[in-house]
Amino acid sequence: MRYAECDPMGVAHHASYAPWLEHARTELLRDSGQTYESLERAGVFLVVTKLEIRYRRPIRYDDIIEVRTRVEGGSKVRIKHEYEIAVIERAGATPDPADPAISPTGVVCAATTTLACVGRDGRPRELPDWLVPG
Amino acid sequence: MRYAECDPMGVAHHASYAPWLEHARTELLRDSGQTYESLERAGVFLVVTKLEIRYRRPIRYDDIIEVRTRVEGGSKVRIKHEYEIAVIERAGATPDPADPAISPTGVVCAATTTLACVGRDGRPRELPDWLVPG
Amino acid sequence: MRYAECDPMGVAHHASYAPWLEHARTELLRDSGQTYESLERAGVFLVVTKLEIRYRRPIRYDDIIEVRTRVEGGSKVRIKHEYEIAVIERAGATPDPADPAISPTGVVCAATTTLACVGRDGRPRELPDWLVPG
Amino acid sequence: MRYAECDPMGVAHHASYAPWLEHARTELLRDSGQTYESLERAGVFLVVTKLEIRYRRPIRYDDIIEVRTRVEGGSKVRIKHEYEIAVIERAGATPDPADPAISPTGVVCAATTTLACVGRDGRPRELPDWLVPG
Repeated sequence: MRYAECDPMGVAHHASYAPWLEHARTELLRDSGQTYESLERAGVFLVVTKLEIRYRRPIRYDDIIEVRTRVEGGSKVRIKHEYEIAVIERAGATPDPADPAISPTGVVCAATTTLACVGRDGRPRELPDWLVPG
Repeated sequence: MRYAECDPMGVAHHASYAPWLEHARTELLRDSGQTYESLERAGVFLVVTKLEIRYRRPIRYDDIIEVRTRVEGGSKVRIKHEYEIAVIERAGATPDPADPAISPTGVVCAATTTLACVGRDGRPRELPDWLVPG
Repeated sequence: MRYAECDPMGVAHHASYAPWLEHARTELLRDSGQTYESLERAGVFLVVTKLEIRYRRPIRYDDIIEVRTRVEGGSKVRIKHEYEIAVIERAGATPDPADPAISPTGVVCAATTTLACVGRDGRPRELPDWLVPG
Repeated sequence: MRYAECDPMGVAHHASYAPWLEHARTELLRDSGQTYESLERAGVFLVVTKLEIRYRRPIRYDDIIEVRTRVEGGSKVRIKHEYEIAVIERAGATPDPADPAISPTGVVCAATTTLACVGRDGRPRELPDWLVPG
């Protein structure tokens, strides 16, 4: 996690997480063979209508994190994603259970987002068939 | 709303909202006679443990917004805030009901956050008495 | 200065300054009777081609700052702005010359930007007459 | 380049570049066998005192960029870095010289930063020997 994403407590600022989630679902889309960039060029826009993040333990500067995401549900006009953020490598020295500043690795955050599909004009439209959660 | 907070759709990026909420609850605290800065100097840190935002309608560049916040509940170790974001003046021309890009003013977003109190060592601690939601 | 703009040293992260400068030159434009939003609607886009910032002293969380800006030069296709950022009120206690963490107020940063004018197609175009630096 | 880093023109906002430069020089340090995180734990802080960025061509959403950096000079208390940002793969379709929105790949930005070394108290101090630019 980058320095610019930290706050004065030396941990990731809570507002830094939303772009990580966005990046993770973009890559999930890319894995399915499309890019969000190509969707927008085709006039399909996905807008976030709901964001929920539960922060369980802090992420510290230079910790290595992994954002795991999957489509959890939705409809013809809506996609819901679930996320877990795990710290897979802590920055610095050996983990020390006596030092709360160096926590063990593991899941530190859970989140969900809901996206709605809109057209170039901002009006709701149906998702392309292949994007409709099955 | 500032240009740097917009995304390619020309509306506020969903990650831009969290700092607005933070700013609003900081000012609410200031109105009560304390600053968050003085709390931190006294070893009282408030960390966000949950964030939930519902985006109802977009906020466009140069719209004038108002963030309304109040303490909604909590405990000896936790404060929950509720927020409404209203667009009080739309950028540009007269509102045009036929143009979805120029929506009427009004509440466009609802949000809640939960803060937990921790000490300088990152361990949970009780809120100062005067901060405990009544 | 807002919490979300701070870094682990407890001071404004150097990347936080650029949006402040943008906001300041936008307001300067508004004072002249136009909004940047109306320029873009008219197909006039101003893109930053050069940014230079000299950070002289840190800005701390909750310091009150003032961004002073003026048009310093330019041409038919280019506008150069100069900026000074001053801390006009320090957060917290009385300034203490012995404590480097509580610096005196005053100018803490100098910056310049160069903007170029482009059309909706991204190609260079001339500035509207009234914007050409005189 | 990520969606959250774009502005309404659909290109990277100019303020998004500074964290990329920071990330690049952090990785350069890591390649030399140290982490910035370990430096801070040892009481050595590097603060940006000057930032200069020249934006030559836009970076578009989903373009793949490479940030090239090297130490260019400095002194016992100061390090100067130079950077080039290159687009190594453009998002979307085949480059089309007739379409300014799809530019060829290549260097699109040049930048320099100057860092000064300070101690935990914020006062200037000498760089560790191994960091002094040779």
